[in-house]
Amino acid sequence: MRAVCVIGLGLIGGSVLRAAAAVGRPAWGATIDEEDSAAAGRAGFEVLATEAALRRAADEDALIVLATPLTAMQGVLRQVAANAPHALLTDVVSVKDAVENEVRKQVPTARYAGGHPMAGLAESGFLAGSAELFSGAAWAVTIEERTPLQAWREAARLALDCGAHVVPTSAAAHDDAAARISHLPHMFAAVLAAVGADGGPLALSLAAGSFRDGTRVAGSPPELVQAMTEGNKPALLDALDDALGRLGAARGSLASTGGLKSTVDAGHQARISLEELDTDTRETSAVALGENALFRLRELGELGGRVTDVTEDEATIEVPVA
Amino acid sequence: MRAVCVIGLGLIGGSVLRAAAAVGRPAWGATIDEEDSAAAGRAGFEVLATEAALRRAADEDALIVLATPLTAMQGVLRQVAANAPHALLTDVVSVKDAVENEVRKQVPTARYAGGHPMAGLAESGFLAGSAELFSGAAWAVTIEERTPLQAWREAARLALDCGAHVVPTSAAAHDDAAARISHLPHMFAAVLAAVGADGGPLALSLAAGSFRDGTRVAGSPPELVQAMTEGNKPALLDALDDALGRLGAARGSLASTGGLKSTVDAGHQARISLEELDTDTRETSAVALGENALFRLRELGELGGRVTDVTEDEATIEVPVA
Repeated sequence: MRAVCVIGLGLIGGSVLRAAAAVGRPAWGATIDEEDSAAAGRAGFEVLATEAALRRAADEDALIVLATPLTAMQGVLRQVAANAPHALLTDVVSVKDAVENEVRKQVPTARYAGGHPMAGLAESGFLAGSAELFSGAAWAVTIEERTPLQAWREAARLALDCGAHVVPTSAAAHDDAAARISHLPHMFAAVLAAVGADGGPLALSLAAGSFRDGTRVAGSPPELVQAMTEGNKPALLDALDDALGRLGAARGSLASTGGLKSTVDAGHQARISLEELDTDTRETSAVALGENALFRLRELGELGGRVTDVTEDEATIEVPVA
Repeated sequence: MRAVCVIGLGLIGGSVLRAAAAVGRPAWGATIDEEDSAAAGRAGFEVLATEAALRRAADEDALIVLATPLTAMQGVLRQVAANAPHALLTDVVSVKDAVENEVRKQVPTARYAGGHPMAGLAESGFLAGSAELFSGAAWAVTIEERTPLQAWREAARLALDCGAHVVPTSAAAHDDAAARISHLPHMFAAVLAAVGADGGPLALSLAAGSFRDGTRVAGSPPELVQAMTEGNKPALLDALDDALGRLGAARGSLASTGGLKSTVDAGHQARISLEELDTDTRETSAVALGENALFRLRELGELGGRVTDVTEDEATIEVPVA
């Protein structure tokens, strides 16, 4: 089993380290955060200095997983270039196009495929994580013109070992999707919480499920939310414009005719689509991992397909039946 | 124990009927919905024709609870005027000013205090309800210039018997608060769901906690959401304008400086305020139910106070310590 070297041992990195070790893979980590480092050490994991961890990854041809914040990525990639320039490389950062570009620029010789597990943010730090954090979650693994098949397979294999299923996608399509289903929800939660609190203690004391659910992620660490949302600026601007358009239309309709039927119905239909995705009949097929296989997988990802197994020769993908 | 007559036996009315019976109060109901009527009958409850139910309430000086949709309120109040014009009367409709005005117009002799339990909407109908639906929930009971002390006490008593605590408030303040913490969340959930679904199957297949939580109430029956939100038009317009202002400011800031710190921080602080409300130290005091007692309770409600007991002579209220 291929070894795993995790750089950054917060909630996500720490959980990847645990999950990789739990399936029996050799695994070690590095972090500049002293609390996370101490916590991982106490939990029995091998924690090295970053350069030492990377050099060992180069020696053992381990998969390096970058789990630092986007804002630290430039510096970490310089260290990768210096210590493991030909490494198998992936990451778990919430935006993909920016990381993809930075990797191409700084470590063009790395065998890289970007990743993003869609899980967890309410707490942070190594101690908040667990080997089960990704169980049942979606995990995007990106496919670009230059993505090496081996890198994609290794990143996908890690995601599957962590208990997730893999959604094959381009970095750009991922970022557009993430803006809509992760970054905009964080903006909405923040705005909703603030408008509610503007109603004073009376409003908050009447708050029930709809407000509590709708504002839950506003409880996430603000610096993480800020980094995540600001890091996906172009796609988030598009999503915000769509949202402002729909919300403005609802406001206009309520003010003029008094009707909110089209807003409510569209939202209901969309939510039903989400729920149906969980229960839809899916057709399972095997994609041979030859030439153009990754683009075929990416097309199936656009249709809602999820990869549930990856071997040396083929990927198993479940696609909703239309 | 005062008898309870519930008109409308959907999720909320059916749950009130069950909870009232569960504490040993004589209770009966009426509904024009055949399914709810049959289900309540099968569950062992006495279901009468609406006029018969109201006449019996008049005979036994029961508390009448109107649990029909806002859109049906006018017709039901005409029946109350014809059959129980001096009744003790409350309601469980999600807007309060409109109901208050309609009651004053149609049944000016009724002893009325409006109510609104902050619970449940994801499903509808008698069968979706339970005696425990309101357990631990807030239940607004309104106080206006003309609210009779006895009517408020009886409505509050019912809420407490249902396991809720009582938030004393004016109808207008309730409607403003409800717009912010219930109706706007439903608008946000609808818009968020639609913007997410516009991202296609890929976006929905990447959706995790933030999107699922933020869109949950978009799964509610659309006709109920529409009636509830449209019924609170002036207050909801204010809340929508606040939200559009905050969201537009975030959009502007992201587009210009690229920064979302003030939006994220304000939302985080607001969410913390909500969570603190559950854990705040509270000071318990007793308010003697004499002259001006209701206005005193209403003031304490503005500060986040909740009534946890009501006797013939006094109300016990817990107010957060500043």
